[in-house]
Amino acid sequence: MFVLDSRLQQDTVAVGDFPLSSLLLMNDSQYPWFILVPRREDVSEIFQLDAADQQQLWREATQLAEVLKDTFDADKMNVANLGNVVSQLHVHVIVRKASDAAWPGPVWGRHPAVPYKEEELARVREKLRMALGDGFRFSQE
Amino acid sequence: MFVLDSRLQQDTVAVGDFPLSSLLLMNDSQYPWFILVPRREDVSEIFQLDAADQQQLWREATQLAEVLKDTFDADKMNVANLGNVVSQLHVHVIVRKASDAAWPGPVWGRHPAVPYKEEELARVREKLRMALGDGFRFSQE
Repeated sequence: MFVLDSRLQQDTVAVGDFPLSSLLLMNDSQYPWFILVPRREDVSEIFQLDAADQQQLWREATQLAEVLKDTFDADKMNVANLGNVVSQLHVHVIVRKASDAAWPGPVWGRHPAVPYKEEELARVREKLRMALGDGFRFSQE
Repeated sequence: MFVLDSRLQQDTVAVGDFPLSSLLLMNDSQYPWFILVPRREDVSEIFQLDAADQQQLWREATQLAEVLKDTFDADKMNVANLGNVVSQLHVHVIVRKASDAAWPGPVWGRHPAVPYKEEELARVREKLRMALGDGFRFSQE
């Protein structure tokens, strides 16, 4: 059975589910920083997914990046599978702006997270509700 | 006409061509660090490629990651499109080991590059010649 890694669970807020991947929001208000986690067991590398799942993951990551770029007015999207710390396969999809705290460096390990306030989180959820269409199932809050 | 970004050209060594992407090796002997650059003009985000090119890019990136993991005995592969500095679309495919200089952090901006010596470069090329199969065309050295 698929169980979300405890570190991912601790650092993020659940947004909902694409057909293959769960969508998480990093609880760091410095960047709109999302994480896709395919609901598959014992996989840490993309090539360990079967061919259909690989295609689906890339489709979800690419479409999500396109939607987020418009929704959050990104200067550049960062899409990355690193997983050096958390081995459960996950893909970062991060909205980057030339004005953000880490630009132009990568976001990982740069600044301590600044957790969202409740009203900020509600605003992000509202934007996502407008942007994410069919095939996405929002979590119960 | 597609022209490789001058910064990418300066920091890397050309390895050869997949059907869509050119394969570059970062001239930094601290990690086997590769970069795929789709030979398409004026594209900085993956979703700006047409659907067929997107699929081909992901196929090349995923297959390359799988081959490199075995060839260079990676503990984890890092696959990332960042592009905050160089806007020409490119995907990093990096062999990470628990013993490398930046582990478990990301490699970008961590340590100054340590250029390859000629014999080290020859060894990397030799390994790639064994590993990269049909559909890959090696550059003239």
